[in-house]
Amino acid sequence: MAQNIYDTPEFFARYSELGRSVHGLDGAAEWPAIRALLPDLGGKRVVDLGCGFGWFARWARQHGAAHVLGLDLSENMIGRARTDTSDAGIDYEIADLEQIELPESSFDFAYSSLALHYIADLGRLVKTVQRSLRPGASFIFTIEHPIYMAPAHAGWMPDGDGRKIWPIDRYSVEGPRRTDWLAKGVIKQHRTLGTTLNTLIGAGFAIRHVQEWAPTADQIAANPDLAEEVERPMILIVSAQR
Amino acid sequence: MAQNIYDTPEFFARYSELGRSVHGLDGAAEWPAIRALLPDLGGKRVVDLGCGFGWFARWARQHGAAHVLGLDLSENMIGRARTDTSDAGIDYEIADLEQIELPESSFDFAYSSLALHYIADLGRLVKTVQRSLRPGASFIFTIEHPIYMAPAHAGWMPDGDGRKIWPIDRYSVEGPRRTDWLAKGVIKQHRTLGTTLNTLIGAGFAIRHVQEWAPTADQIAANPDLAEEVERPMILIVSAQR
Repeated sequence: MAQNIYDTPEFFARYSELGRSVHGLDGAAEWPAIRALLPDLGGKRVVDLGCGFGWFARWARQHGAAHVLGLDLSENMIGRARTDTSDAGIDYEIADLEQIELPESSFDFAYSSLALHYIADLGRLVKTVQRSLRPGASFIFTIEHPIYMAPAHAGWMPDGDGRKIWPIDRYSVEGPRRTDWLAKGVIKQHRTLGTTLNTLIGAGFAIRHVQEWAPTADQIAANPDLAEEVERPMILIVSAQR
Repeated sequence: MAQNIYDTPEFFARYSELGRSVHGLDGAAEWPAIRALLPDLGGKRVVDLGCGFGWFARWARQHGAAHVLGLDLSENMIGRARTDTSDAGIDYEIADLEQIELPESSFDFAYSSLALHYIADLGRLVKTVQRSLRPGASFIFTIEHPIYMAPAHAGWMPDGDGRKIWPIDRYSVEGPRRTDWLAKGVIKQHRTLGTTLNTLIGAGFAIRHVQEWAPTADQIAANPDLAEEVERPMILIVSAQR
């Protein structure tokens, strides 16, 4: 079973205070880039892997999705999602993505936001998602970028000339990374970008778009803290098609 | 026209002393990984973009290729390739990959080793290669990895704990990078990995394999200097199919 850090009180309290938790999709700087890649959701049956508070599920329904199945390991998240939602077209279920089974050829679109870097057996999950999609259906997900995850010390440091740099090491050493983000000892699974893409290809997906997200000039003007995301990518966005 | 650094005397003299120049394909640590991805070349018409001294062209002929067209901007390289080759099944031509035209549907395999990072208009070249291939044909290339190219100071430095780290910055700032490699002022074109892949996809290629090359344990045991390649990738290997 995957680590369930979201159900520890310290992590959940702090996570709930993040911009993306308070303001939903519009509180996530990468959302406009994701949205630009989304297919028309009209009439589609959608599965959201790691649905959290259900912001995307509700957005998908507002944009015409016929049904959304939101899955998350965290009882806290699913509880809050259910509290915040009154829509017979959305079902939220507690589910461990490491072990999940999904009905075959039953979804028209699969989505996942910043969840897959917690998954140790990505190959199993990706195959499960592939089989659950109808032919031609898309799978769009975001995942922490391996440049962000790889380092022994994942944090900015100065170089000798006063520049702020991101210290890469261990890039090709795949496996768990222990970080202290919102709480101590959060376990993430580092994979190279190549491994993530080859896992999709091996499961029968065609790669449609790969975006190492960076903020736009307008976003930086509105929020100068985002400028550092230009220096090293934190989020990888992938669009794949069955 | 692309910078023709290979025809400057200082660069060419030093390049000629590299292991991969003296020993050919077996002098390049990434060659076994490339070779594992190659299709059967038996009877195939091959184009090699940036053929250098012609090592791959000769290898392809030894492995059954019907014909190889080797293209390189450098008169020095093409001159030496012609001197080293006596094979009516290989043609070497001086050509600027920024402006090249290729006959349509005329090759069964396209290859390029560490040349595309010199190309400013990758989109034009990739479209030209795509049209020059027969349907189903592969394009396998290596290119300097964007992690290697991105930094303002592309070199190892110590972090505060005595680790050797690779200082990433400017990852999402695409465009020229001026480096001093073998000679001063070598211009390379930095693109994110996403841009390189999206350029292929946009030209009609399917991505088949993406490998951020790292040495094997056996290679490191035989040549401990290679160990640093595990810390940050220098070479990206891509296999695509028309």
